[in-house]
Amino acid sequence: MNTSAGSGPHAGARTAVERAMEAALALSEGVRGTTSPNPPVGAVILDADGRRVGEGATQPPPGPHAEVLALREAGDRARGGTAVVTLEPCSHHGRTPPCTRALIEAGVAAVRFAVSDPHPEASGGAGVLRAAGVDVEGGLLAEQVAAGPLRAWLHRERTGRPHVTWKYATSLDGRVAAADGTSRWISGPVSRAEVHTLRSRMDAVVVGTGTVLADDPWLTVRAKDGTLADRQPLRVVVGTRGIPRDARVLDSAAETVVFATHDPGEVLAGLAERGVVDVLLEGGPTVAGAFVAGGMVDRILAYVAPALLGAGPVALRDAGVSTITEAHRWRVEEATMSGEDVRISAVPLTGEGGD
Amino acid sequence: MNTSAGSGPHAGARTAVERAMEAALALSEGVRGTTSPNPPVGAVILDADGRRVGEGATQPPPGPHAEVLALREAGDRARGGTAVVTLEPCSHHGRTPPCTRALIEAGVAAVRFAVSDPHPEASGGAGVLRAAGVDVEGGLLAEQVAAGPLRAWLHRERTGRPHVTWKYATSLDGRVAAADGTSRWISGPVSRAEVHTLRSRMDAVVVGTGTVLADDPWLTVRAKDGTLADRQPLRVVVGTRGIPRDARVLDSAAETVVFATHDPGEVLAGLAERGVVDVLLEGGPTVAGAFVAGGMVDRILAYVAPALLGAGPVALRDAGVSTITEAHRWRVEEATMSGEDVRISAVPLTGEGGD
Ligand SMILES: NC(=O)c1ccc[n+]([C@@H]2O[C@H](COP(=O)([O-])OP(=O)(O)OC[C@H]3O[C@@H](n4cnc5c(N)ncnc54)[C@H](OP(=O)(O)O)[C@@H]3O)[C@@H](O)[C@H]2O)c1
Ligand SMILES: NC(=O)c1ccc[n+]([C@@H]2O[C@H](COP(=O)([O-])OP(=O)(O)OC[C@H]3O[C@@H](n4cnc5c(N)ncnc54)[C@H](OP(=O)(O)O)[C@@H]3O)[C@@H](O)[C@H]2O)c1
Repeated sequence: MNTSAGSGPHAGARTAVERAMEAALALSEGVRGTTSPNPPVGAVILDADGRRVGEGATQPPPGPHAEVLALREAGDRARGGTAVVTLEPCSHHGRTPPCTRALIEAGVAAVRFAVSDPHPEASGGAGVLRAAGVDVEGGLLAEQVAAGPLRAWLHRERTGRPHVTWKYATSLDGRVAAADGTSRWISGPVSRAEVHTLRSRMDAVVVGTGTVLADDPWLTVRAKDGTLADRQPLRVVVGTRGIPRDARVLDSAAETVVFATHDPGEVLAGLAERGVVDVLLEGGPTVAGAFVAGGMVDRILAYVAPALLGAGPVALRDAGVSTITEAHRWRVEEATMSGEDVRISAVPLTGEGGD
Repeated sequence: MNTSAGSGPHAGARTAVERAMEAALALSEGVRGTTSPNPPVGAVILDADGRRVGEGATQPPPGPHAEVLALREAGDRARGGTAVVTLEPCSHHGRTPPCTRALIEAGVAAVRFAVSDPHPEASGGAGVLRAAGVDVEGGLLAEQVAAGPLRAWLHRERTGRPHVTWKYATSLDGRVAAADGTSRWISGPVSRAEVHTLRSRMDAVVVGTGTVLADDPWLTVRAKDGTLADRQPLRVVVGTRGIPRDARVLDSAAETVVFATHDPGEVLAGLAERGVVDVLLEGGPTVAGAFVAGGMVDRILAYVAPALLGAGPVALRDAGVSTITEAHRWRVEEATMSGEDVRISAVPLTGEGGD
């Protein structure tokens, strides 16, 4: 028997499968922020000759999963082909019938997925497919998918709480506003546009009452011409003080919830209950300090503007550190230019969710 | 007549000249910090066939200039050759006879230099050489040389005051020490080693009395094994409070001057008088604020460590800014990793020496 890589029914299809996975990854990126509590998944169907015949990405609940959409487009051409999916197909009845059944009924010969499903109910999808005679393999582009579009969802599956990205804009000397409280604009237009794109992919945006009272922000996603995006993340305010009825955050542009608490764990539990998976913490320093001290920040995105202020509030307050050896230590994932600013992305040094 | 680039007595020598200029640049880098008040210059002599026959770099005053050393090594082989120098050769009698005379006497056929000499007395070196029949051309690698080894010296020539690099190590949230004043070590070992290399190239290192009283630093250049380097930058303390007689900054490892003033202009004038060209301002926040407010910082080198403190002093205090529109705006030259830290290098947005 010839056991070289070139043998078998999918001989020569390796490159087509890899390219299909890259397409599936891009498809999933495109629906990020619209699928919670479900994961943003991308799927591509190749026919028996390795031609792309169907594509799909998870639809907002209760819409269909990625595989089902892609199979619909492929129709009969899926028979004997390969399904390429960013996440192991589910095998349980949820709001939709299991994807494994759809794949088996469509007669695909092979399934390639990136990341294994960590969810107890859903896992076993690979086993169900194999039992039905499908050639199954996982792990393709697993790291990119796990660090990219599925990052927040995997975190929620593992820890039970939403993934928190703390984003702030600071001067080179660590100030998030000037002495008089003004902070528009510390960072440049490229960074501000990037933050709007980031927000548009999030389930919720969180600030403290201090930021609402100081800045009166909208916290909405707007296009360049100022028009509101169709989908808006949930706006979340944390704190016990009342906020003015005419505060912009209370307008009709998006939904808003107020958590009258100082406990970030309570906030995240409440958000998890609402199906929130991916959270953007936009400050200010007090609320950020509480999240950092509680080990509830999973990623930092700092936009460092080449400006000096010499006075004004600092990015973080009261994070439970009194001497240098107690410092919260992180690891820089990436430091790049964002227009004229430096964007620093960091993750906790050990494990997930703070130290 | 054949006017192609390949004609003339130096046909084919173009690449050799460029490589020689790169070597001259490296030679000048090697003597940075040892030549003030003279510029750190590098020189390479090519013989008539483009072979490298001599090399030199400025020696500490009153030692010889780079060209003279390189000509010495080349001897007779310089005749009909090319002298490649990072700075236009001087034509005036200073502590040493003019380099133009040495070049003419050695019989070089051509001189290539990077940066023109802005010094009124010395300029005209190119003219003197041309009058003697030497083929002279400037501008080769001029930008690299002007932004690199000659940066501080050119700045001093233009403005009359030393070039100031403000260096600080900060947490991601802008703190230069923890709440209890401890700051060893905010940044990682790679950054700290880099700072020692930086210091070794400087004429002077400046701190305020606050830093001396809080940290009791040595401010010396030491090798990895702790032994003192042969050459030490001048140690400078700014402030009116007395500092303890047993402060490390007053030990015998290097010279120390105290400026009992709060006026950074006075400090720089005093340093210029002593022949200081290149200054490393190592803080703390109060002294840095005074230099920034006075427009006397020419470059920022921030080592941003992926640590969070949430309390403690911030990199800069009282820089004369009360609202965001008054922020001192800079331009990021470079943002790169330095071990686990991010090193951000920035220069004033407009012109030299602050805004
Ligand atoms: N550049 C940026 O990226 C950025 C982003 C946001 C804000 N800012 C600036 O930050 C400043 C506002 O700072 P801030 O600290 O007041 O804002 P904040 O953190 O948004 O709000 C502080 C408030 O949050 C509540 N809170 C929630 N959890 C808490 C806890 N564990 N401990 C104590 N309080 C808790 C308290 O409200 P109650 O008192 O109501 O209970 C507290 O007063 C403004 O100048 C704003 O411009 C800058
Ligand atoms: N991480 C870092 O890169 C770094 C570097 C340096 C320091 N630090 C930290 O900074 C803290 C010390 O901060 P600091 O601000 O006290 O230090 P500093 O700036 O070194 O010293 C402050 C003193 O400088 C004098 N001074 C000079 N010019 C002045 C002016 N224009 N206005 C007012 N005073 C002037 C005053 O001394 P007199 O009162 O004697 O006149 C003042 O008290 C320490 O915790 C230290 O660890 C950190």
